[in-house]
Amino acid sequence: MEKLSIPKGTRDFGQIESFRRKYIIEKIQSNFIKYGFVPIETPTIEHLSVLTGKYGDEGDQLIFKILNSGDYLKKTNSKDYQQGFKSLLPKIAEKGLRYDLTVPFARYVVMNQHRITFPFKRYQIQPVWRADRPQKGRYREFYQCDADIIGCKSKWNEIELTLLIHDVFKSLNFDEFEIKINHREVLFAMAASADLKGKEILFCVALDKIDKIGVDKVLDEIKLLQGNVAKVSKYLKIITSSVDQSLKIKKLAAITDTRNKGFEELNVFFKTLNDITDRNFKISLDFSLARGLSYYTGLIYEVKTTKVKIGSICGGGRYDNLTGMFGLNGVSGIGISFGLDRIYDILIEYNLFPKTSEGGPKVLITHLDATAFKHGINLIDKIRNAGISADLFPEPVKIQKQMNYANKLKIPYVITVGSDEISQARYPLKNMISGKTLISPIESIIATLKTE
Amino acid sequence: MEKLSIPKGTRDFGQIESFRRKYIIEKIQSNFIKYGFVPIETPTIEHLSVLTGKYGDEGDQLIFKILNSGDYLKKTNSKDYQQGFKSLLPKIAEKGLRYDLTVPFARYVVMNQHRITFPFKRYQIQPVWRADRPQKGRYREFYQCDADIIGCKSKWNEIELTLLIHDVFKSLNFDEFEIKINHREVLFAMAASADLKGKEILFCVALDKIDKIGVDKVLDEIKLLQGNVAKVSKYLKIITSSVDQSLKIKKLAAITDTRNKGFEELNVFFKTLNDITDRNFKISLDFSLARGLSYYTGLIYEVKTTKVKIGSICGGGRYDNLTGMFGLNGVSGIGISFGLDRIYDILIEYNLFPKTSEGGPKVLITHLDATAFKHGINLIDKIRNAGISADLFPEPVKIQKQMNYANKLKIPYVITVGSDEISQARYPLKNMISGKTLISPIESIIATLKTE
Repeated sequence: MEKLSIPKGTRDFGQIESFRRKYIIEKIQSNFIKYGFVPIETPTIEHLSVLTGKYGDEGDQLIFKILNSGDYLKKTNSKDYQQGFKSLLPKIAEKGLRYDLTVPFARYVVMNQHRITFPFKRYQIQPVWRADRPQKGRYREFYQCDADIIGCKSKWNEIELTLLIHDVFKSLNFDEFEIKINHREVLFAMAASADLKGKEILFCVALDKIDKIGVDKVLDEIKLLQGNVAKVSKYLKIITSSVDQSLKIKKLAAITDTRNKGFEELNVFFKTLNDITDRNFKISLDFSLARGLSYYTGLIYEVKTTKVKIGSICGGGRYDNLTGMFGLNGVSGIGISFGLDRIYDILIEYNLFPKTSEGGPKVLITHLDATAFKHGINLIDKIRNAGISADLFPEPVKIQKQMNYANKLKIPYVITVGSDEISQARYPLKNMISGKTLISPIESIIATLKTE
Repeated sequence: MEKLSIPKGTRDFGQIESFRRKYIIEKIQSNFIKYGFVPIETPTIEHLSVLTGKYGDEGDQLIFKILNSGDYLKKTNSKDYQQGFKSLLPKIAEKGLRYDLTVPFARYVVMNQHRITFPFKRYQIQPVWRADRPQKGRYREFYQCDADIIGCKSKWNEIELTLLIHDVFKSLNFDEFEIKINHREVLFAMAASADLKGKEILFCVALDKIDKIGVDKVLDEIKLLQGNVAKVSKYLKIITSSVDQSLKIKKLAAITDTRNKGFEELNVFFKTLNDITDRNFKISLDFSLARGLSYYTGLIYEVKTTKVKIGSICGGGRYDNLTGMFGLNGVSGIGISFGLDRIYDILIEYNLFPKTSEGGPKVLITHLDATAFKHGINLIDKIRNAGISADLFPEPVKIQKQMNYANKLKIPYVITVGSDEISQARYPLKNMISGKTLISPIESIIATLKTE
């Protein structure tokens, strides 16, 4: 038999990983709910006509395609085969796995536009799939946790999502994050003013590399693009300067386009945020921030850790026409997406998972003989009825073996039942960490377990 | 543009459906945890070598296959194409979507056998996919909620899973269920004693139809199988009789094989259950119950509703060699699986979902002018910081439009802010169901919202 394995880029999650993932999801979800978002779920499988053409050529190739059921060759002939895999594809595969949650959300909004009350605040926490080359922190199956407000132009949404980002990381006890802010319109103004109109994407790609390759090499790239190097050099000075945000905005506006509405929106954003919250967190303006996705049109976000280099752990922005891809125009919205897998890696790195529990039972009942086992059945039922996660060792083996089981599973409490315990109706509750034992009736034990 | 749609047999879940699905999952999960089960998750995508050959030919055809990435034709030649879709398949698709949670669980146990502490009690709540013909109550993507105890022969497990089934349905306020019990060894003894050794599966299929086609037609099928019709006729009399369980067992044992251990296990099961619990629920012995899956070897379960005809809502049983399919023999286990989608349909049918909430925010702040909106920002922050799901209407529109929004979203409370409210620091909290309004400071409002 060949060696058992799981597909490259996928993962099994055992007890502890699975418990910790649920912990993160629960924190993100409860904050989404607190901010008034409601859940939706969309199918894993979507028509390829819905998925393709939304993520660029490179993205399209990373979509997992599903073979049609039954005789998938029935619509083909040998000429199709000869023409190669690209032209054969549409005849043998009509469905694929979702690549993100945004495109299915846009499809959902368009299909349900007459039933939805706008502004529509939806959250969605589901896995997505990309046939990407697996590497550290990049998987072929991973979770996205998205919150979007659609059908609303109010700039209050920008503030609200910022507060939400803060609250999510705070609830995970994670302080070492920084929110970076930019505005797509500002990026466009910068490109235009540096003679790079029509080459905005390439301009952004070059600018985005400043941290990795440095000022000089960015300017080399601008030269190759036939952009105004002197102007971009001025941009880079402003970007790397440490003046305050309003001064940065003023300086950049002065050398690009003072009437560009991106500058005004950034000004209002920072002022409002300053006025309304005493939350203490790092938020900064970064004119080099671009975000890959092409549908953003307004303010954009990216959240990074201040210490560990792991890419962004949350990102998003305003889009003016997301549903336009499915024929519904003029619906403005804004969204953010948390990356569960990277947040998981960071909480491990910073040692921030709760130490009290690893998801196993809180107490194990062990027994010295068959009569004690039978007695244990009644005790376990009482403990569980009180809502406490509990287990009765199921086999009549030596007590040492039962204690080993509790130790291996890191079960924090053990009750041992023997004939004395039965006759006195008092049981020893051993704290497996401190080693201390408390002998009392089952009702007191339940009360103790409930408060611990 | 062609009409937007989702693939046949898949579903979008909007706010209410999604909220209700989460409600069911939360109830099932908290009972799994209470009984000491720990979570695992396995990938959506598995190697086809893991999935195929486990569900019979029919099952294999229902597995969704994923095309290899990139040039999926590169390992093929035109001869492969000419030979048709079955022989081409292994060269263009190496992965598939999981068909159930049991086979991936067996794979997980075998791959992690040296790390797992047995008995291993795992739960797993994830979707599965089958390219089945969609019909009422049958979908191509649906959730399974599984709990298994593996590496343990103790018959206490049989009892424990029965209590778990009871507790799950009780926690959903659902009483109208019936647990049916049978034993695979008894079915084998019945087949052997009716001259149908080697035709056990066909015998079970015929027997299983008794409710649908009646006694006479079942006997016709037995005749076709060349079985002992007189003997099976006696079985059917016992099956349809209303004597108590121990007498049924005694009668059937007498005409098949009194030494078959299935009878003794059933006796002990019902006696133990009777001794230890005063839970009041319908559980019955049904010698015609077969359960489709071939890996069961001991006690089997099936849960049905007593009123609505919707198929089984939970099923399971003991298996002596589940991991044998991956080369690890001699590991006994027992498991049950709850069908989320059918339970959902039943709770709708019986009107058992909580009426208090549909998952939206609990309170909406509305405002009479721009100053009131700004004031609302501080209020919303205070309410949310108290952990209450709340929203601030994001746009400066007429109050009536804001109230309409609250009504459409069925938001139960509305606070309206105007200049009087700001100057007095007292706000009207309107209960949208009773129509009553309470005017008080924000701290009292928060206290009220917390207790409601």
